[in-house]
This record gives sequence, C-alpha cells and structure tokens, in this order.
Amino acid sequence: MDAAATPEDVRRVVASVEGLGYKAHPIPGSQRTAIGVTGNRGTVDSGAFENLPGVAEVIPVTAPYKLVSREAKRETTVVSVGGVPVGGQRITLIAGPCAVESEGQALEVARRVRDAGAQLFRGGAYKPRTSPYSFQGLGEEGLAILKRVREETGLPIVTEVLDTETAELVAETADCLQIGARNMQNFSLLRKVGRLRKPVLLKRGMSATLEELLLSAEYLLAEGNYDVILCERGVRTFANHTRNTLDLAAIPYVQRISHLPILVDPSHGTGKRQKVLPMSRAAIAAGADGLLIEVHPHPEEALSDGPQALLPEMFAQLADEVRRLAPVIGRTA
Amino acid sequence: MDAAATPEDVRRVVASVEGLGYKAHPIPGSQRTAIGVTGNRGTVDSGAFENLPGVAEVIPVTAPYKLVSREAKRETTVVSVGGVPVGGQRITLIAGPCAVESEGQALEVARRVRDAGAQLFRGGAYKPRTSPYSFQGLGEEGLAILKRVREETGLPIVTEVLDTETAELVAETADCLQIGARNMQNFSLLRKVGRLRKPVLLKRGMSATLEELLLSAEYLLAEGNYDVILCERGVRTFANHTRNTLDLAAIPYVQRISHLPILVDPSHGTGKRQKVLPMSRAAIAAGADGLLIEVHPHPEEALSDGPQALLPEMFAQLADEVRRLAPVIGRTA
Amino acid sequence: MDAAATPEDVRRVVASVEGLGYKAHPIPGSQRTAIGVTGNRGTVDSGAFENLPGVAEVIPVTAPYKLVSREAKRETTVVSVGGVPVGGQRITLIAGPCAVESEGQALEVARRVRDAGAQLFRGGAYKPRTSPYSFQGLGEEGLAILKRVREETGLPIVTEVLDTETAELVAETADCLQIGARNMQNFSLLRKVGRLRKPVLLKRGMSATLEELLLSAEYLLAEGNYDVILCERGVRTFANHTRNTLDLAAIPYVQRISHLPILVDPSHGTGKRQKVLPMSRAAIAAGADGLLIEVHPHPEEALSDGPQALLPEMFAQLADEVRRLAPVIGRTA
Amino acid sequence: MDAAATPEDVRRVVASVEGLGYKAHPIPGSQRTAIGVTGNRGTVDSGAFENLPGVAEVIPVTAPYKLVSREAKRETTVVSVGGVPVGGQRITLIAGPCAVESEGQALEVARRVRDAGAQLFRGGAYKPRTSPYSFQGLGEEGLAILKRVREETGLPIVTEVLDTETAELVAETADCLQIGARNMQNFSLLRKVGRLRKPVLLKRGMSATLEELLLSAEYLLAEGNYDVILCERGVRTFANHTRNTLDLAAIPYVQRISHLPILVDPSHGTGKRQKVLPMSRAAIAAGADGLLIEVHPHPEEALSDGPQALLPEMFAQLADEVRRLAPVIGRTA
Repeated sequence: MDAAATPEDVRRVVASVEGLGYKAHPIPGSQRTAIGVTGNRGTVDSGAFENLPGVAEVIPVTAPYKLVSREAKRETTVVSVGGVPVGGQRITLIAGPCAVESEGQALEVARRVRDAGAQLFRGGAYKPRTSPYSFQGLGEEGLAILKRVREETGLPIVTEVLDTETAELVAETADCLQIGARNMQNFSLLRKVGRLRKPVLLKRGMSATLEELLLSAEYLLAEGNYDVILCERGVRTFANHTRNTLDLAAIPYVQRISHLPILVDPSHGTGKRQKVLPMSRAAIAAGADGLLIEVHPHPEEALSDGPQALLPEMFAQLADEVRRLAPVIGRTA
Repeated sequence: MDAAATPEDVRRVVASVEGLGYKAHPIPGSQRTAIGVTGNRGTVDSGAFENLPGVAEVIPVTAPYKLVSREAKRETTVVSVGGVPVGGQRITLIAGPCAVESEGQALEVARRVRDAGAQLFRGGAYKPRTSPYSFQGLGEEGLAILKRVREETGLPIVTEVLDTETAELVAETADCLQIGARNMQNFSLLRKVGRLRKPVLLKRGMSATLEELLLSAEYLLAEGNYDVILCERGVRTFANHTRNTLDLAAIPYVQRISHLPILVDPSHGTGKRQKVLPMSRAAIAAGADGLLIEVHPHPEEALSDGPQALLPEMFAQLADEVRRLAPVIGRTA
Repeated sequence: MDAAATPEDVRRVVASVEGLGYKAHPIPGSQRTAIGVTGNRGTVDSGAFENLPGVAEVIPVTAPYKLVSREAKRETTVVSVGGVPVGGQRITLIAGPCAVESEGQALEVARRVRDAGAQLFRGGAYKPRTSPYSFQGLGEEGLAILKRVREETGLPIVTEVLDTETAELVAETADCLQIGARNMQNFSLLRKVGRLRKPVLLKRGMSATLEELLLSAEYLLAEGNYDVILCERGVRTFANHTRNTLDLAAIPYVQRISHLPILVDPSHGTGKRQKVLPMSRAAIAAGADGLLIEVHPHPEEALSDGPQALLPEMFAQLADEVRRLAPVIGRTA
Repeated sequence: MDAAATPEDVRRVVASVEGLGYKAHPIPGSQRTAIGVTGNRGTVDSGAFENLPGVAEVIPVTAPYKLVSREAKRETTVVSVGGVPVGGQRITLIAGPCAVESEGQALEVARRVRDAGAQLFRGGAYKPRTSPYSFQGLGEEGLAILKRVREETGLPIVTEVLDTETAELVAETADCLQIGARNMQNFSLLRKVGRLRKPVLLKRGMSATLEELLLSAEYLLAEGNYDVILCERGVRTFANHTRNTLDLAAIPYVQRISHLPILVDPSHGTGKRQKVLPMSRAAIAAGADGLLIEVHPHPEEALSDGPQALLPEMFAQLADEVRRLAPVIGRTA
C-alpha cells in the first residue's frame, strides 16, 4: 500500500481479495502496510487490486507454472528422440544444415556429422524467413530428403514445424519437432504440437524471459506431451558484436526451476562461425545437456544463414573438444 | 576487407561476387580496400562473402522491402475499415475491452466509447495468453457478440486473429483483422491473412526492429493485401517502470520509409492505466494516425489486462484531449 | 520461502531478520510461506537472507529514496536557473550547440535561439567523447565564450561539468551544471556538485532505471543541493532506427514519484535531426517541463553530433509548435 | 545515396568529401549510387554528409581504435600485476570480498583464497553505491588493510579507483587499479589513470558496446599506459533471471580485434551465488584469461553484494574445476 493509504483503503483491498475467494494478510510496517494474498491457484490477475485507492504495487510471488517445475517432478527428464536420450548423463550433439537444400547436400552433411559424433540430424524443410523474398525451404521435398537421411545414416531427425497445417505432415517424418524462437508464443501451434506426442525442441524467443519460456513449455505438457527439450539460442540486446546475445546463465537457472533438459544453439546464438566453437565449449561447461549446431559443406553457397554454419571439419573439432570437456564436468559425450 | 588482406584476397572476393551475377567495385583506401556490390535484386546473403579470406565485414546497403516502401508508392495509404478511413487527415480512435467477456460488457463499453468519439470497436474473442491456465477468450461466442456490437452501435470491428485455422471464421465477423505482437513473425499466418482481403492491423513484435516490422507487412502486401495498418505497442527493454517501452520515434521513421499508416497502442505500450493518457497525447503529437485503447467498465474485474484498461470516463477525457490536440498538428479528430 | 521449506527454515529466517533489528511477519499460504520484513530504514540488503536454506526469493518493497520523493515533498519543485523558472507552469526551452566551437558560432546560435524563444543557452566547453581522438571541447576558452554569450544575449548558461577538478571552474561560469548520461553514476562528481549550490541538470544514464536516476538525484539532495532538474535523453535498446530509444513514459512516472522537474533531450534521444521535431512535440504532450535542443548554424561542419543538430530556423519552428501545444495541455510557453 | 538522388546530389557529396581533404569514390549501382570515402585518419564525423540532399545513410567502415587493435600489435599482451602475469598461458584467478570490511575479514578471505589457488587479491576500499545511504567503503583505512593483506599473504592487490582525487592515493597501495563499470566512460578518470603507470583492470560498462570498451581502453593506452586488462561483467538486458546478462561471446570477439587480455567477473555478471560456478567454467571454456570472483566468509553479513559472494570453500571448488578445465583448452591454471 502507499505510505498515504488510509485504514479504509486497506480494508477495501482486503475485502476485494476476499471477494475473489483468497485470503488477505495485512502486515502493518512503520511506513506502509503490505497485504499478503494466499489461497490462489495459479496467478492472481494483479488488475484486480492494482487500481484500488491506496495501492502502491502488486508483486506476484507464486510461480505460475506447475507441470514443468521441479516442485512437480524432482528428477530430471530424459527425452528419447528416436532412441537417443536427451537430458541424461550423455551430452547430445545435434548437427546439420540450417535448411535442407538437396539430397546430396543433406546426405553429405549427415554422414560427416555422424562420423564426427553427432547423434541427431537437424535440417529445415520449412524455414521461417524475415523477408518474403528469401528462400523458404523445400517443404515436402525436404521432408522426403530427411527420411532418406535417416535411412542412410541411422540418425534420428530434428526438424522445424512452422504451423498447424503442416504439423502432422512434419510429424510423420520427424523424430523431434522443433518450435522456433519466433513461434515460442504461437499458442495454437504449441497446443497442436502438444497433442502430437512427438518429442519437442522448444527454442527460447528472442526476447522471452525464462518464465515465459517455461510457460510455453507448460502449454505442451498441459496437452499431455511431456517429452519437451528446451533450447537457449540467444536473446536480442543492444550488443552488436554478435547476432544475438547468448544467455548461458539460463542453463543453471532452468535446471534449478525445471526438470526439463536444456540445449544451447550457439550457431544462432552468435551468428558468427568463429564464435561457435568457443561458445559451444562455454555452453557445455555451464552444464548444457547438448548442442544444436549448423553445419554446411559449402557455407558460402548456403541458401540461408551461411555465415554461422561450420564446415564439417570444424564440427569434428567441436565434437572432439566436447568429448574432452565432458569428463571434467562429470558428463560423457 | 581486412587491413592485412592481400591483392589475392581482393581478387577472390571480386570473383565470388561476379560468380553470383553481381558487379564488384573495389575501392582501395589508405589502410584497407572496400568492395561495393551492385546489381542485386533483393538482399545479398552476406554468407556468400563473409568467410572468404581477408574479408573484415559485410555491410548491407540496399533496403530489403519493396511494396511497403515510399519508393514504391509516394502517397500515404488510407485504409478503409468498414467505411472508416485510417491513415488520412483524421485521427482514428479504436477502443474497447482487451477481451470480450459478455454481451453486456461489450455493449456497454461500445456504446460509451462510441459516444465519446471512438470510430472503431476493438475486443478479443481469441486471446493469446502467456499461461495455459489464463482465460483464453470466448471464441465463437465472442465473435457473435462482436457482430451484435456492430449491429447495435454501428461501430466496425477490429479483432485479433490468432491462427490460420480460425482466420476465415474471424474474418467473417471482423472488419479489420489484428495480428498481435507475438504473431508478427508467424509467417504462415501472415500469408493466410494476406489472402483474406480484409484490412489488417499488424502490431510490432516485442523485440522487432522496424525493418522486421516492415518485412512482415511486406508478406501481407506480397499476397495482394494492400490494406495494412501498422501499430507500435512498445518494445521490451531493461526499463522496468512500464510493462514495455513505447518507442514513439518509430512513427516518424515509418512515415518516412513507408506509405502505410501507423497507430499506437499506449495500453500495451505502458501496461499502466495512469500512463495511457499522457502517452496517448504524446503519440498523437508525434504524428500517429490513431490510437488503440483498452477500455473496461470495471477494470478490477477484467479477465485480462485490467491494470491497463481505462474507465469509460477516462476514455472520454482522452478523446477530448485528442480533439484539442489535432488542429495544433494539422489534423482533425 | 520455497514450497519445500521446513518450519525450521522459516524460524531461521525469522531469527535472522530479528537479529538485524527488524520485525519479521510470517504469512503461511497454502503452498508456501511468505515472510514480511518491516522496521527497516532504507533498503535491507537482501544478501542477509537470500542464501538461507528454504528461501526462494527476496523482494524489496520499500522505496529506497527519501528526499527526492513526493512523500517527502508534495508540491513540485521549481528550480530557478539565473532567474528562469524550470518546473513550473511555463515550459522551458534550452537550446544551443552540442559544443562551443568559437565565439562567432556560439553568439550566432544564442541570438537566434533567444529570438525564437529559448530561455536558456546550452553549449559544452568540456565534452565527453567516446574516442580519445575526437574533439574534446575548448575547455576554459569555451567557458569564456559562454560568459560572453550571457553578457550579449542575457541568456543564462547550462553547461556540462565533466569532473571534480574542473567543477568549481565550470560553476563560476555556469548558471546550471549539466551532469551527462555517462556520469549519472559518477558518485564522486555527484557529491562534489551537490556541495556547489548551483542548479543541476542530471541526465538519465544510458541504461539507468528510473530508480537509479532518482537515487543519483538523491546524492545531490543529500549534500544539500535541492535545485535538481532531471532529464530523459533516451536509453540503449536493440532498436536501431534511432541512436537511443526515447522513453517518454519516464515523464509521468517521475512526476508521480518525485517532486523534481523533468526535461527531455530529443536531440540525443533520437540522434536524428528529422526526428527532433516530432519527438519534441511528443515530449511536451507527455507532460515534460521543457526541452533541451541542439542547434547549430552549419550542422554539416559541427565538430560533434552534427547529424542531430537543428538549424536555427528549424528550432524557431519547434518553439512555435511548443507555444501552440502548451495551452492544450494547460501549460504556457 | 537515396534511390531518388540526382547526379547533382552526388556531385555535392563528392565535393563535400573532398572539401574535408578525403577522397570520394562514387559507385553507381542499378538502383542507387554508393560513395566510398577514404584518406581519413580516425573516424569521419558522419554529420558532415548525413544531411546533404540525396544522402540515404552514412556507414562507418574504418575501425576507430588504433593502439588497442591487433593490427597495431599482433602478439597478445601479458600484463604483470605485482609479478603475476595476466594474459599469458596461465589462467589468473583474482578473488576477495566485494568490500574490505575489516582487517580480520580481509585477511581471512585472503589466506583462504590464496590457499585455494588465487594469485591476486581483490577488495574495495572505495565503493561506488547506487544509493547515498549504502556503505561506501572504508576508504584510507581500507587501503591500509589491503597493504597488510599483501604483506601477510604475498598476494598482489587489485582495488577500485573511484575518482581522480583519490587515484594517486589508491595507486600507492594497489598493484592494479580497477575501473568499475559505471566509470568506463569517465574519461577524466581514464586519462588520470593512464598517466599513473600502474596496471589497470577496465570493466565493461553496463550497456557498453565492445567498440566503446575498446575506445575507453584506447584512452589509457593513448596516455602511455599499455598495461590494460579488460573485464566482461555482464550487460543490462530485459532478462530478469540474473542481475546482468553475462556476454561471454565478448571474449573471442575482443581476442580477435585486440591484443589486450580479457577476464570475466561472474559474480557481478550473474549476481547470484549459485550461478557463479557454472558461469566461471563457461568463461574459462570460452577462452577468458582469468576470473574475478567475490568471496566472503559470511555472505549473509556482507555490507555489500552478499548474495553473489562465494563461501571460501566454494571458491576452492571453483579453483579446482578451473585447474581441471585448463588443460582441455590448452591452458594452465
């Protein structure tokens, strides 16, 4: 309450709290009175009180998520993607091109990243692009190529699902459905994917708080899909030396609050090839459960995001460094 | 090019530029050589050059949008929403509750904002909510109420379209389809709405640059829908005294670059009722073509966003202030 | 407290609070217990509790500033700068070049802005520059020119004080000491200037919260200097269409919390000449007590910040628009 | 140039460029003409051209720093702090309390961090505090304690210099002068410290770009002081799960552009004790030359920044993990 709030103001807030079926706990202080609210399930809409006379501020205390929280499930979730565990003792490497461009390109990358140690293949058939004039992905043809990649290499497939219309089609091919940063709060898509019962890789939005990321994951779990993997991919800030600012402190934060595994995408997180290797090491050292890495055999010809793609031999070096880091932090790779 | 780049490095970049069908223009300086690229249509993917030896930086110069730009169309677009012009001489006031909660609530608000001077009614039947446990809107029942509002008050309807599944249904009722901040880069939705041929109100994403906003509008125009209204609704920054930071300089920037009209939503832009009135005045003074205002008869009982809703009498005061401001800046209201 | 906190955890926190001489108020809820703390003067260092077992979060409630707050002084402060009131009914226009470059330049600008309606002259003799190789101001020679400007035009002088060494020297000439954004948390300078008993114009730091701005002002008042004028000059965000993002909602926020007057600097706030006029109007419409405007007769030759300086005739137009806006919002100009 | 620029516009810009003694290189494209500028030493003030008719944008290409750049000095600088090399093969651990509170506290921490592997001791005698009512440090008494710490433990001392008045006094005691984030652009202090010829630890400002950080370092080198160590300590963003967002990609960026060593301060960078250990590992894995860690024997009683201070035994664990990480990335510790 405001320092100038009257006893009448306090009574009015208490009545308003109780009118909503909650309990009100006034705590008089030397300068002002605070009123605790309990008995709520889920968030209390602060609008109910914020504009009553004498109210200075409404401060939420209860966490708004349930199913994703460690309070709901103590042990860390391990998600099986086509038989590959994500979130357990072993660090998971997911690699592949930003976009599937041709069968030749996809197979070449897949074989090389598999040989270097990747356990899952990533590649977009449907691409979200800022400009309508940019390459938008091969679509169904891309999905067919991804199937071939799995047959040829044995690598399970992680690929992006862009919208509800194509979600089922993509789910027929994918072993794991990726929801991109721009769709993190596309709630219709979250609900649809939550009902598809395929593992989901949910990327953090460009300016999403971790609370918002976890609430988007909550949409998936609330539909019955518990196989959710989170992914930090950098946030938008004033800093202009990288494309995004990779927020690695998200890893220990998420791991304390939630039981879901969390990966890092240093390719989008930096947007610069030369930064991918050091930031991959940093992500693993911070405790990430794995990495999502863009690899292209000829980045200068890539139809999207070439500047951040590693060459296959750079990915091999990355995988090697991860293998050497893993035991230092009590993991395997 | 890097200061240490060799003539061979320069030749290699020139060859690479020409290999893509562009022209290369090397400009030797005292410390380093710059290479201009021309002849491109649309953006050149900087990945093509950024990783060649000796290249220090790739700097895009050409604007990536076409149809939305003033270079494409000199005169400012006026969009007719159910007969109400948006973008012309007259300032447009759009008002209504965040969410349609009942026929009584919607009609009460509609009559009062119409009487106070609003020309269009806003109200959500489908609501995007951060938490799956929050009120998600009345859906089809809400659309039926919106139809009743138009019949009773004569106000054309602006309402949000959340996804491609419900887009046609919403378009049957709406006079203008609102695309929310979280969906600004939902490209499938943009394409779908671009084909519906209803006026569109496109809100700036929470951390979207103006270039990204204009490119999202470009998606709509590229599908043939030229009736697009932009809306600044605040961006996410470190500043914590408002829910978002209202970026009013976006108005003159957009007006210089693009022919599309631009409104301001000070309700979301501040998230605080007490800030809506001063920021509404500021938006109009900065040149906005209109305002989008949340009004609720009993904000403390609102099912969403109560703290930022104006009481009807506050909206009447706002409309009055806009009317007095308009002639000072050469507009009417 | 954490949902899993034991009664023993609660007792330990209560004991810790009381050990510091405060009162503890445990409020048991259905899922977790909150503990209110009262009896503190000033902020409680949350470190005292944050790491005790079972503590989930420490949330500060008491405002940390005293002398700058409206709770300390209800009526708005009017600061007299060389006889010109800042913060009262009348809107104050402060104009002049970024840097004093020569007597001729300064006098020409001063005469023209005075004739157009400016009440105070601004111009830097000591300039903070990002690069050591940029023009750093004329120093003492600049101060001598500023004195001449006041003698010739009658305009009181606002000029920046860069450091404690030159503070007294600058104070001999200045009618108002400007503390720049980069020095907003230069606490030694704040203390020094707080003891000089000249009016102070304190600019918001590039990423300062309003709480931090008010606490920096508190440093000045705590030294006995109550003649403090605040200034919003844009904050640093991801948005790249202006040099900074002008945060006009700071105006009503500061006016509610504090009794100090607040100006806006749209020149730095936008960094673009074409944006200064619309954002000046917006600032006044939002309730600002005045404007700080950069004016240069030949901006293309300016030694600093040319791109944001208005031509004198543009300033005259701006002053004219402010005069027409003022009565609409119940002010004079 | 704008697409609508006339040949006359182009000639005017060329003349303006040449009038400043530079060379102009017009490059006609299919849609617009670009004009390259060369022959400049240091930055060209874009104000000279930005407002000429037909000019669309001025894009700086030349890097504005000289002495700090790798182009000026290829080999990485190793700074000797009281005999301890910073920036070489060996990772440097700097540890100690946020503020020196008493001789007992300082000595206890110093002995324990030395025994755990710290090579340098940090501790503030002069503290910059957001509020004038917070503990401001012990001042000269603190410096005397720091001398005792060095005598007793042999650890060279890193301590903050707050202002030009106390700079020489602090320099008599300190082996390395720390310039805090809030003072990164206190140019008077930079110049003063640049002349003191003691090693300097320069922290990145809260919203400083890396270009600004390097230009602030350039101030020090331009005064003749080449013993400069940079420090990433987190930047201010919308993200609210940590006190600041630690921007580890700054490390490889700085190492590519500059020859100066760079450390990381995960204590301020996260503001949360539980995040210090994982982010320390991440910083080392990303290539940092060392760490700056706050350690306090009784954080719950710390007079400042208790929540982010490690207990001595936690620091010992951190040092141990760094020792195990170092060989994996080709360093020693």
